[in-house]
Amino acid sequence: MLLAEGPLSRVELARRTGLSSTAVTKAARPLIDDGYLYELPPERTAPGAGRPVNPLAVAPDREYFIGLKISSDQVFGAVCDLRAGIRATAVRPLDDCTPEAAAALTAGLVGELLDAEPAFRSRTRHIGVAVNGDVDRDGGRLRHSGLLGWRDVPLAELLTAATGLAVTVENDVRALTVAEHWFGEGIGTEYFALVTIGAGIGSALVVNGQLLRGAHGVAGEVGHLCVDPSGPRCRCGARGCVEAIASTDAILAEVRQATGNPHLTFGEVADLARGDHPAAREAFARAGHAIGVGISALVNLVGPERVVVSGEGVDAYDLLSRHIQDAYAAHAFGAASRCPLSLRPLPWEDWARGGAAVAIQALFPQYAVTTTTGAG
Amino acid sequence: MLLAEGPLSRVELARRTGLSSTAVTKAARPLIDDGYLYELPPERTAPGAGRPVNPLAVAPDREYFIGLKISSDQVFGAVCDLRAGIRATAVRPLDDCTPEAAAALTAGLVGELLDAEPAFRSRTRHIGVAVNGDVDRDGGRLRHSGLLGWRDVPLAELLTAATGLAVTVENDVRALTVAEHWFGEGIGTEYFALVTIGAGIGSALVVNGQLLRGAHGVAGEVGHLCVDPSGPRCRCGARGCVEAIASTDAILAEVRQATGNPHLTFGEVADLARGDHPAAREAFARAGHAIGVGISALVNLVGPERVVVSGEGVDAYDLLSRHIQDAYAAHAFGAASRCPLSLRPLPWEDWARGGAAVAIQALFPQYAVTTTTGAG
Repeated sequence: MLLAEGPLSRVELARRTGLSSTAVTKAARPLIDDGYLYELPPERTAPGAGRPVNPLAVAPDREYFIGLKISSDQVFGAVCDLRAGIRATAVRPLDDCTPEAAAALTAGLVGELLDAEPAFRSRTRHIGVAVNGDVDRDGGRLRHSGLLGWRDVPLAELLTAATGLAVTVENDVRALTVAEHWFGEGIGTEYFALVTIGAGIGSALVVNGQLLRGAHGVAGEVGHLCVDPSGPRCRCGARGCVEAIASTDAILAEVRQATGNPHLTFGEVADLARGDHPAAREAFARAGHAIGVGISALVNLVGPERVVVSGEGVDAYDLLSRHIQDAYAAHAFGAASRCPLSLRPLPWEDWARGGAAVAIQALFPQYAVTTTTGAG
Repeated sequence: MLLAEGPLSRVELARRTGLSSTAVTKAARPLIDDGYLYELPPERTAPGAGRPVNPLAVAPDREYFIGLKISSDQVFGAVCDLRAGIRATAVRPLDDCTPEAAAALTAGLVGELLDAEPAFRSRTRHIGVAVNGDVDRDGGRLRHSGLLGWRDVPLAELLTAATGLAVTVENDVRALTVAEHWFGEGIGTEYFALVTIGAGIGSALVVNGQLLRGAHGVAGEVGHLCVDPSGPRCRCGARGCVEAIASTDAILAEVRQATGNPHLTFGEVADLARGDHPAAREAFARAGHAIGVGISALVNLVGPERVVVSGEGVDAYDLLSRHIQDAYAAHAFGAASRCPLSLRPLPWEDWARGGAAVAIQALFPQYAVTTTTGAG
């Protein structure tokens, strides 16, 4: 809670967590002794409001974390402090997209990041990796990534061997959601969702303050909800998935076919739509509608407090936004419609920061973010 | 865990809950002193397996609970023991569906149930009420029920005044889900869902062992997922909801229109479909498909370990089943398809028992059902 919400007195912490003051004081002591927390000068909230209190605050520079986002052609890295503040960034092109080449490249990138400031090397112990695909976080393995073409890769082991640091691996959308939940739009929420649009369409959900993982490792697959029984075939094999209608590839294919021009780029398609080309406008309208219906399904089933929309597809959000909002408003059921959608154009640094947030969270496994406010 | 899974040794309880043996022993002592738990005779699991252990067991007759299901024309009641075993049932017709008339009728029904066995009256303190609509469980209020036509009714207060017993009110689908999670098909699962089909289509979900409530009180609204943009208009105002295609009323309206016979009953429509009437078969096929797509959305987003399908609509399950299973299999994404659907034709007694399960759960608010098995 201190990481997410900033300095708070022990009394306020006790009130918000539902813990006893004794429990808060007891939990804070070793963290103060280790330098993770410190006491701010006493403050008196109002004249006559009782004896002054010393709010507790996180010492952000006590430890640094490296966050990485591995994509099929680049590795992005960021050094973050304890509150996920970005302190340095670097990026390297990945010419050879194999696990071994990525690990070697990453070792160099990590070295570059650690050299950016003298304190980084001595106070960094942990790397968090955000990566596309099905991740076994506890086992440190990437089970499968279609985008990278990797299967059953012991990524944590490879990167620990290459860097000498502890490594936690997490699915990239889930990592971004952890970062937004602890340090972004989702602060203080118990039910929260993040939806990413772009080449793929995915989401991750926070329920009762915890990331939803699904009994079989699958959850948040908003891209594979069927929203139109007569819709196009998806690469997953099913018909009418959100992703088959609304991914950047789906929009591109639709407009290429409609115009008879197979060489159009996504940027050109977006420009056509902005120029009122009917087929291009229609493709974005259908895509936005499918995304809005998918988000309404998520909201009707899980009931988040807010939904953040992000991903590389938000570059075209001006073309999608109204259709997403209209479809969402039409299909959100009853009080569920009170859940606001907000747009967050998160650049690649934020995906790397997602990895760092996972590493920060791994440092405090015993402290789940829960508050006594919000839905009961 | 003892309520759900039966006698277990303290060592086994500690192992499964992740608590220390000391914590288990400490938690058990007051429950033994109060007669809720007792020790079974020592058992030795295998020769030479160490000193004998006394498994702990729940004393089911230590306390009884009355479960009620209030529908628009009947009130069902059941006396259940601590393990939700049904010990007596009763039902009364509700001629005047107002909160006051229902409370008066319920007082008589509760009296009848308590008189069924001498021990019931002395050992019953708590009523759990399962009721359609939007329920504020903590406040004991029914915010709104379309089926009953009630709005903002202080139901717990009314029923406590009428019966002298403590009252907990819960949405009926959520109550049934609590009963199935603690005492039925969902035992031992951390992610579990129950879907009811019939006049309405609803669901409730258990995530990390807890009932999902949604930040705005809305969750599990599988009936209001949009599965067909060109589908019929739903009573919620949106187009293409599962409920607009697959509720008993929707099927009935469809076949009445196709046959030009406005007097057909649902039973007659089901018989037509069983007799291979094309329009009737097609209406059930479309309904089953919509339900299967709705369940696949639930499974893709939340990832339950298993889904139970129930509700009064299961009388026609022979006509729906294949279509539900086919659509579910076609749209469940990846490993999510490992989640089995099972049919549980739960009669009205089980809905009343759902109320009792909520009352039992209210007795042990500090004991959430969590296990160390299942998804991490």
